[in-house]
Amino acid sequence: MDTLKTRRTIRRYRRQDIPATLLNDLLESACRASTVGNMQTYSVVITRDAARKAALAPAHFNQPMVQTAPVVLTFCIDLRRFSRWCEQRKALPGYNNLEWFVTGSIDTLLAAQTFCVAAEEAGLGICYLGTTTYNPQPIIDALQLPELVFPITTITVGYPDETPSQTDRLPLEAVVHEEYYHDYTSEAIDRLYADKEALPENRQFVLENHKETLAQVFTDVRYTKADSEYFSKALLEAMTKQGFFTA
Amino acid sequence: MDTLKTRRTIRRYRRQDIPATLLNDLLESACRASTVGNMQTYSVVITRDAARKAALAPAHFNQPMVQTAPVVLTFCIDLRRFSRWCEQRKALPGYNNLEWFVTGSIDTLLAAQTFCVAAEEAGLGICYLGTTTYNPQPIIDALQLPELVFPITTITVGYPDETPSQTDRLPLEAVVHEEYYHDYTSEAIDRLYADKEALPENRQFVLENHKETLAQVFTDVRYTKADSEYFSKALLEAMTKQGFFTA
Repeated sequence: MDTLKTRRTIRRYRRQDIPATLLNDLLESACRASTVGNMQTYSVVITRDAARKAALAPAHFNQPMVQTAPVVLTFCIDLRRFSRWCEQRKALPGYNNLEWFVTGSIDTLLAAQTFCVAAEEAGLGICYLGTTTYNPQPIIDALQLPELVFPITTITVGYPDETPSQTDRLPLEAVVHEEYYHDYTSEAIDRLYADKEALPENRQFVLENHKETLAQVFTDVRYTKADSEYFSKALLEAMTKQGFFTA
Repeated sequence: MDTLKTRRTIRRYRRQDIPATLLNDLLESACRASTVGNMQTYSVVITRDAARKAALAPAHFNQPMVQTAPVVLTFCIDLRRFSRWCEQRKALPGYNNLEWFVTGSIDTLLAAQTFCVAAEEAGLGICYLGTTTYNPQPIIDALQLPELVFPITTITVGYPDETPSQTDRLPLEAVVHEEYYHDYTSEAIDRLYADKEALPENRQFVLENHKETLAQVFTDVRYTKADSEYFSKALLEAMTKQGFFTA
């Protein structure tokens, strides 16, 4: 399992298709992930068609991987299939609420990540698109997702055409707490972020963006408060429209 | 990677501790999972102490694994560490909203599932506790989670003391959609759920619960509409209290 430790996200892919048998095999592995009550509250939409990738691209801010990857997978929370089964079996489903949005997203993400581990082990490269939840409505429209189905993440997959260097991570002590949450002192924050702030690429990032600190690149450029509030509103609207939230 | 295909959830563990070096190694692998903007918006609380496990147990409806597993890991969305760093670096964080609850939960669950894959590859067994989001407040209290930290899933880990048979899964065609969502016809639902309904253990389950259909065991006993609505309310209250939602 050295793959887990040496992995890196791949954004450039060779012009080579992924055989359907391989993709199915990886998806079979994904479906062995833990799932609440063995309900499998997810669906996966496979996009290979160029026109359909083009339709998805704007929702992902036209990140090039959407159109250059041979396969785009949209992982969706799906309480519709299970609810339909209930309705056909004289049972009253109660999955149109926030609890099942969250529970469904857990199911879906465990399957998505298992897919990624299996794909990387098979020599493929993947990239997660966090843009999926920024403005889900265009994705819902493009993929014709009905009520109780919701896109939670997207993965582009293909044979790697690059070997990027591994990105840094915080030291393990930054994310692990023994027995209870030990809040961060100012000194701890300074110590835990020191290596990240000292990286040449991050110093360059600060300069290019004309900022004083690396944190400002995040808050002022990459992930601003105004954008997050806008996306939160769009997300809640889509959750409501898909039947997972009632004001 | 046959482990991915042959895995099963383990609920009974040997009385054998997990060495700290092994646990740290697995957590290092977990931290290599994809993460939004390399922000690592998660924390993991490790519970080994018997008294602390006992404090967590009621929140998980006293499922025995919480107290019999050598290690209990609570995976938490964490926007606090990053926000504190921003504040110390003259940057204005804007992560106290729904978008970052969802984005943080994605980060957290990819790390959690990577941990599980690594753990199983190392011969350990795991069990996810979906109860974590049913009533998060007692967990928040027990682990002293501050604002912008939220428990999204819990994993019990230990050396397996059972070899349960693998549970069934729906056929792959039930969860995969080519190019767009193909809604389920009545005939498709019948066909896709036929094997599951025919399993002897599921027939037994229906009999024991004095129900007419397997679906009714889910809707009337295991995951009722009334419970889901109650849990949704508790979840939204906790999300609000932890700073991720504003009414």
